[in-house]
Parts: sequence; structure tokens; C-alpha cells
Amino acid sequence: MNTAATPPATMHASTHNRQIRLARRPVGMPVRDDWSFTTEAVVEPADGGLLVKTRALSLDPAMRGWMNEGKSYIAPVAIGEVMRAGGIGEVIASRNPRFAAGDLVTGALGVQEYASFTEAEAKKAGLAKIDTRLGSVTQWLNVLGMPGMTGYFGLMEVGQAKAGDTVVVSGAAGAVGQTVGQLARIKGCRVVGIAGGPAKCEWVVKELGFDACIDYKAGNVKAALREHCPKGVDVYFDNVGGDILDDVLTRIGRGARIVICGAISQYNNTTAVQGPKNYMSLLVNRARMEGMVVFDYADRYPQAIAELAGYLRDGRMKSKEDVVLGIENFPKALLKLFSGENFGKLVLEVA
Amino acid sequence: MNTAATPPATMHASTHNRQIRLARRPVGMPVRDDWSFTTEAVVEPADGGLLVKTRALSLDPAMRGWMNEGKSYIAPVAIGEVMRAGGIGEVIASRNPRFAAGDLVTGALGVQEYASFTEAEAKKAGLAKIDTRLGSVTQWLNVLGMPGMTGYFGLMEVGQAKAGDTVVVSGAAGAVGQTVGQLARIKGCRVVGIAGGPAKCEWVVKELGFDACIDYKAGNVKAALREHCPKGVDVYFDNVGGDILDDVLTRIGRGARIVICGAISQYNNTTAVQGPKNYMSLLVNRARMEGMVVFDYADRYPQAIAELAGYLRDGRMKSKEDVVLGIENFPKALLKLFSGENFGKLVLEVA
Repeated sequence: MNTAATPPATMHASTHNRQIRLARRPVGMPVRDDWSFTTEAVVEPADGGLLVKTRALSLDPAMRGWMNEGKSYIAPVAIGEVMRAGGIGEVIASRNPRFAAGDLVTGALGVQEYASFTEAEAKKAGLAKIDTRLGSVTQWLNVLGMPGMTGYFGLMEVGQAKAGDTVVVSGAAGAVGQTVGQLARIKGCRVVGIAGGPAKCEWVVKELGFDACIDYKAGNVKAALREHCPKGVDVYFDNVGGDILDDVLTRIGRGARIVICGAISQYNNTTAVQGPKNYMSLLVNRARMEGMVVFDYADRYPQAIAELAGYLRDGRMKSKEDVVLGIENFPKALLKLFSGENFGKLVLEVA
Repeated sequence: MNTAATPPATMHASTHNRQIRLARRPVGMPVRDDWSFTTEAVVEPADGGLLVKTRALSLDPAMRGWMNEGKSYIAPVAIGEVMRAGGIGEVIASRNPRFAAGDLVTGALGVQEYASFTEAEAKKAGLAKIDTRLGSVTQWLNVLGMPGMTGYFGLMEVGQAKAGDTVVVSGAAGAVGQTVGQLARIKGCRVVGIAGGPAKCEWVVKELGFDACIDYKAGNVKAALREHCPKGVDVYFDNVGGDILDDVLTRIGRGARIVICGAISQYNNTTAVQGPKNYMSLLVNRARMEGMVVFDYADRYPQAIAELAGYLRDGRMKSKEDVVLGIENFPKALLKLFSGENFGKLVLEVA
């Protein structure tokens, strides 16, 4: 253990690690009894390992999928396992040459106050140092983190957005949506958001500079799309699925690209997922619908982070985080994503 | 009128043209009363025009879509209009320098015994001479016609099929399916068809050389796909939509391409189209679903026809047509497509 550093966060023999584990697989919306709260003693890292004190965790819609049994792009969280979560923490003890006590790191820390890693585990968790000169801790979970990477590569690589395109993004006030819309604007696109409620819509237009934002809770999305996308939709970045995907399918233009990033409206279904009944619009418009998983672009994150940090610095890009305090509030906080209650990237501040 | 030629087919002043027109828009499966039968006198072509005697018409699932109101990739057939149909005919009178009496031509002739065109109409109908040394009249409606072009460009351009891929095609014994499967085999793919009934499946495997064919009427398509596509599906060429599309979505591999060519299972729905409820498999597998319309590739038809005619000539490609005789049988014959009763490319022989 590296005892040379004297960071504000330290480990004592008496330090305990509060953790939240998956107790059982939820049916529909996760409830309190789907979780178990445990406390473990914190152990010193072995040779090559390190110990990280969690500062903040990223709460994401994808977490709901990780709680389900079955094949997906990533293994499900096992019953009894600490819930998977990406986050930012401070290295408080390191026997790994890549990290020193005091470093701020990002990676899969899990929903716990302390995360200890062997050398192999640190690699698997994707632990990497962050540079807070590029952005704050919460921005590193937002524009400079997974949501930002997802928006960046989804829009540019899968969506193939180019100047003059009309880009529509659902979940526009959410973590991924913020990046997608602002980046599309920077790239010279016309940008129309879809979000829930007038406050989010106003923020998206006035603060983030979208050309328009459709309040899906206010009614006729299809009519609003007609109004705001007179030339049709060239890129639709879909975070929600369900009826909104079907509405957008009625407005896509020739050669449109639909980026399937998520389907938050369907994640807590207890019945079958609602498939897009207007998918034949893909044929009529020679359009495509394509899925993406951000991890595939990991080797290009540094380039995207550098570009996005530049936009944060010069003020062309803003970010908004919705911060909930206290690890014990994780189960409740997660539900805000599905009710659409969160306003901005949802972050759980742990320490 | 060019009277120099003395072809077997000629026009007399007394010649009458029997036509089938769309009388009203069908609800669900088209019925007899959705059509009207008319007879018109045949008129001599004006300067630049020509008159074509229909030999054979192509009956295609897409026809059902043309009968519906509303925006699509092509305008609907108007009420009272002669039903749109592609076909082959013989020029019996021409005042157009591009065509001479006796020429065999392909194009949008409509469901009628004689088709007369002004110069502009001939262009719009895509009239082009055919060379029967490359294939028979019915082959020109099949492998060398629209279905063949659809299969060729759908598989190679949209599906991006390459040697070693596993290609699945539904409607395997149909017009498009034949070309897709045989071409994929020629290109070095593993090919699995999906068709209705043991006779079609046997023919597809034994005569066309597919690696396997799944009889969807026999039961568990999903299990059969597991068996025959052990490495997953790289390209799915979809002619049918519905449950089969959902079944294939459970078996696609990383980076798979789903070509949306049609959805014959849904064309006569009186309720909403069944959307693919497993579409999130596109995300998990970073796969895409893309629509196509064959007309977009019109300038490349000659190249594709030359290639496919070569395969017909050297025996690597076979074709099967299901020929129904008599224009008066059009309404009944069309229904064979939707019951799956046709075996091979459905052709209506008119004269």
C-alpha cells in the first residue's frame, strides 16, 4: 500500500464499505426488495491492485437491462453481486504502477463506497485516470463519460450526421440526448429534441440551443414532427422506443439513419416489447435502423473526449447533471430515470 | 404506324383490349368486387408512340401495396385505373425509333391485353427491349426481371453479403428468394431458406442447392434457425415480416444486416402491422435493418442481368415459374401469393 500520499480520503483499519447488491431479478419496475444492503470491511490491495473510494456514480437506463437474466451485449449482474455502475473515485491505496493515491479514476466501480481491484480486475473495470482540467467530476460522468461517448459515436458513426441534416433526438434533456443535440448543432444540423414537460423543453431550446423541442407529454408528437421537420428526418437518435419511435418513423426522409441506442419506455415491461409497427417506412424511404454499443469505440474515446472538452471550454456545449446524494438512495434514484423525473444526467454522489 | 413488319401478333381495326381495373380499395385480402373488367378498342399509336401486345405479366406481392391509398415509394393505383403490372409484350405497332414491330419489350404494361404508349409514357413505363438469348420470357420476369434485380442488389448492396457469411432468406421458393439464395451460394455463403411446406423446402435444397430450408408451417422456426445457423445469421433477406422476422432477430450475429424487401405476411392486415418486438437485438448485436427499393438501382440493371444470365447459361442458377393462364384469372391468381400457394415466380400468361 502506497502510504506516501496524504489525500483527504484515507483508509483506516476500521473503514467499512457499504454496498448495494442485486437480491433478485425485478419483475417490471425495480422495488426495494430487489436490493440488499451489505457492509464489508475494506481490505488493503494486494500486489498490482488498488483501492478506490467512490465519489460519484453514473445512473443509467442501461442498468435496468443488466438486472435481467439472459444474453445481451454484456453479462447480467449476478444475484448477490454488487450492482454494476460506472463512476468516479479517488485512489486511496495503490500497489499498481499505473495509479497513485490521490488519482481520480473512472471505471466500473459498482454501487459501493469503496471498490478494490486486483490488477486484472482494474483492467476489466476499464479504470483510467481523469483530468479534471477538462471537466468536473460530474461532467466526466456526463459529456466526457459514457453518455457523451455514446452520443458522439452514435451520432457521427452510426448516424452519419452531416451539415444540413435534420436530427431528432429523444430523451433530449437526458445525458445522451444533451450531447447528441448540442453536437449535431455544432456540426451544422437542424436539431429537434423530444422531452417530457415544458421545463425540459424550454431548457433544451433556450440553454442548449436546439432548434425546437417537442413535449411528448403535451400530445401529438406526429403533428409536431411535421411542423418542426418540414424536410423530413435524416437522423433519429432513439433513446426511448415505443410510440415515439413509431411516430418518428412516419417522418423519416430518404436514406434516413435511425440510431438504436436504447428503449427506455420498454425496459420495465412485463409484457413483450412493443415493436415498431411502422418499420416498413424503412423500405419506403430506403432507410436504416442500426444498433450501437458504446464499448466498441473504446479505443477512440480519447479523441472524442478531447473534442467534447474543447466545446465545454469554449462554451459551445453545456452540461446539466441531476445529483442525488447518498448511496442509500440508489434504489429510489434509479427510478427517476424511468419516470422521466431526472433533469439532466442522473448522478449519485457517494462521497 | 409501322406496317412493314409482319409479326405473328397484329392489330386489326376490330381488335379489343381486355383490361382489369381497380374498382375500389380492398380491405384485407382483395376480393372479386375490388376489380372491374373493361374492354376498349385498341387505337393506333401517335407519332413517337407504340403499341404492345401483352405476352405475360409479373404478379408480385408489392401489388397489394400499390392498391392502398397513401404515400409509399410509388403512387398508388388510382380507382378506375388499369392495375399496374410489369410484364413482357411484343411490339405490334411502333412510331418510336427505339422500337420496331416484333421487338419483345419489358416494362409496366398493366393488367391488359394491349398497352399503348406515347413517347413519354414509354419512358415512364421503363420500356426496354429484352434479348431472349439471355433467358426465356418467363425468366425475364423472374431472375432477369424485377425479382432478380431485387435479389441481386438487396443481397449484394444492402446486405453486403460476402463469402463465409450465413445468409437466411424467407420466401425462399418465391421469385426474389430463388435469386437471393442461389446468388449467395455462388458468392460462397452458407444459405438457409425459409419456405412453406415440404415440397418447396425439398426443391430449394435439392434443386437450388441451399444448405438447408426451414418449413415454417412445420413448427419451431427459432429452433430450426439454431440448428442450421450455428454461427448466427449475418444477412437476413426478409420478404415476409411478422413472426419469422422476430424469430430471425433472435439469431442474428454481430454486425448482421437485415434487408427489408417486403412483409408479405402483413400486406392484407386489417389491423396494424406487427412490428418486430425483438428489434432491440439490433442493439445487442450492433446490427442493422435497412429497406430497399429496386428502382434505385435501375442504371445498374444491365450489369446484374449480364451476370445472372451467365449463371443461367452455365447452369449454376435455376429458375422456376408458376404460370397461370388467362388475363381473366388475374384476381384469383394474385391471391396465390398471399396464401403461399404459388411455387416459384408467379406469372400470368396473357397471350
